[in-house]
Amino acid sequence: MDEVFETRSKLELAEKRVTIPVDEIVSLVSGIFENIGCSTEISRQVAEHLADASLCGMESHGLMRCLQYADQFASGYMRPDVEPELKISERGATIVDGKGGIGIPAMHLAIDEACRVAGKQGVSAIAISNVGHTGRLGAFTEAAAERGFLCICFGGGGREKWRQVAPYGGRQAMLPTNPYSIAVPGGERGPMMFDFATSKIAGGWIYAARSAGARLPDNVLMDAEGNVTRDPEDYFLGGAIMPSGGHKGYALALAAEIVAEALLGPTETEGGWLLLTVDCGRYREASAMQRDAEEILDELRNCPPAPGFDRVEIPGEREREHRMMTKDNGIALPQKTWRQIEVLSQRLEAARSAG
Amino acid sequence: MDEVFETRSKLELAEKRVTIPVDEIVSLVSGIFENIGCSTEISRQVAEHLADASLCGMESHGLMRCLQYADQFASGYMRPDVEPELKISERGATIVDGKGGIGIPAMHLAIDEACRVAGKQGVSAIAISNVGHTGRLGAFTEAAAERGFLCICFGGGGREKWRQVAPYGGRQAMLPTNPYSIAVPGGERGPMMFDFATSKIAGGWIYAARSAGARLPDNVLMDAEGNVTRDPEDYFLGGAIMPSGGHKGYALALAAEIVAEALLGPTETEGGWLLLTVDCGRYREASAMQRDAEEILDELRNCPPAPGFDRVEIPGEREREHRMMTKDNGIALPQKTWRQIEVLSQRLEAARSAG
Repeated sequence: MDEVFETRSKLELAEKRVTIPVDEIVSLVSGIFENIGCSTEISRQVAEHLADASLCGMESHGLMRCLQYADQFASGYMRPDVEPELKISERGATIVDGKGGIGIPAMHLAIDEACRVAGKQGVSAIAISNVGHTGRLGAFTEAAAERGFLCICFGGGGREKWRQVAPYGGRQAMLPTNPYSIAVPGGERGPMMFDFATSKIAGGWIYAARSAGARLPDNVLMDAEGNVTRDPEDYFLGGAIMPSGGHKGYALALAAEIVAEALLGPTETEGGWLLLTVDCGRYREASAMQRDAEEILDELRNCPPAPGFDRVEIPGEREREHRMMTKDNGIALPQKTWRQIEVLSQRLEAARSAG
Repeated sequence: MDEVFETRSKLELAEKRVTIPVDEIVSLVSGIFENIGCSTEISRQVAEHLADASLCGMESHGLMRCLQYADQFASGYMRPDVEPELKISERGATIVDGKGGIGIPAMHLAIDEACRVAGKQGVSAIAISNVGHTGRLGAFTEAAAERGFLCICFGGGGREKWRQVAPYGGRQAMLPTNPYSIAVPGGERGPMMFDFATSKIAGGWIYAARSAGARLPDNVLMDAEGNVTRDPEDYFLGGAIMPSGGHKGYALALAAEIVAEALLGPTETEGGWLLLTVDCGRYREASAMQRDAEEILDELRNCPPAPGFDRVEIPGEREREHRMMTKDNGIALPQKTWRQIEVLSQRLEAARSAG
């Protein structure tokens, strides 16, 4: 039942951790991106985004991603020397063009514009395309919700590169894990926010399980014949992740694929994203909305837990609690990850001094 | 795995059917609503909507609903003598006020306005509130997609009346089955459309299983202690439906509850709905979008099936295929349902003649 969390803790137990103060690691990772050729502003924005994901306990989207981004810059998959650009297409769509760069600054730009336009006309739709990895989607929708907006972001696409998930009823990996995030201004403790893959598990867990020599939770993976398996190796032998909720996760993933690939059209880097933002202030005063939301959230927090659970959580609160608990102490990275980041940083510094 | 479909076919085997020509039943059901006091136009619109849901094979949202609507009009839960009204609220939100009437004409009005505004400014947000049952949500989002729009509808709310689903990690029914529907212009065979409850099964299946004396599929229902059960009676003894996809369905349901109850605020009848509509023509020419969508859909249709499945389906196509296959022959209703509709019709006719 608690499939993803089980896998998460498995990863956490795998090796010792070293705790680095937030400022120190942001500065170091920022330096990595600068040495790769990103602007000072983008370097800092990306480093802060990744550090925040780590602080939130979202390790899969945290600082270790800087290693992947460095590889992707080195291989030419992403470009470091570009700035995202806001434009109105010939047909009249508002689009943030990531210019083949990293997706995080493009998402920041899109959220600012989304809130500006929604504030003016009540609702906005913005596409984000030609971007590499966009980081933790929920950070962006939540930022809009903190400003009083309901924010929905979905997409992904790029199935030709990311065939990971079988359609419901099928036994071949055909679709990416195309995620959805929705954030809405909530009660006293901040927005309610979720950010999930439409597959039973995100692709990263298969790599994590393989590397840890662990079996996956039951009923999330099928082998090449379509039979349920717990062996991560089966994935690499033609298997597929199953869609979350059967036909429901499949339908969500397919809608996202059509949006990213058919609505937004071919892109240079990864797929594309659609951001829909609604000004909640048009409906009710913020205080009235917050009061009624708090009533709902409070009821849920007081729901008696099911066997095997401690409590009912409000989506988005776990991340905020984790951030609150950890931010003064620093970020606890797996030793191996920290070593890899240090080595990368030193190598790039040396190259810069030499060059 | 195929939980809902198993339950569906169980219902279909329960009793003999009688086939009624579409015109005949639309006219009869339309007469029922007229005799209750609905306008001629609304009566016809509702009857046609329900008949179409039956033609699509969506029996849970089909003609049998006219019996429920008649009861709800009789009890005063819904009002027959009202027309939905499009208005701009004091704060600037576009709202279709259903005036406590049936939701189907309100949704029709909302879709027309949603497409008109999205055609003008690229995107629209419309709330629908103070409505009774809104029929088959997917019929509305699909209608917008047929006109070239991406359309998202979600909401529900009214948990104080509809505590059916446990939050993830909890063991008490607290939330309604708050559904989501998304439709997007797709390939050659029409839009891709889905319309699903955020719970593992819709509430209606519990009543269907109880009435049929059948057990429910495994892993969809918990008893009052939070243990999985297949006995529908456990639901009525303090049990709860489980959220689809665990924390994912729960998060979707909660976002919908906050939108319906906190964003839109208190309503007179059931909860409320939010409709977000995007003009796809702003992004790409319809033919280019259709070509790329068809490529995705065609790949999926050709995915080798998993054990126990015949094929991979495209969400929305099953309903269209069912309609194509049945519309010339008429609607096959369970004998008992047809008898109840006839009796209701005769009783109302007699009352009108007498009155």
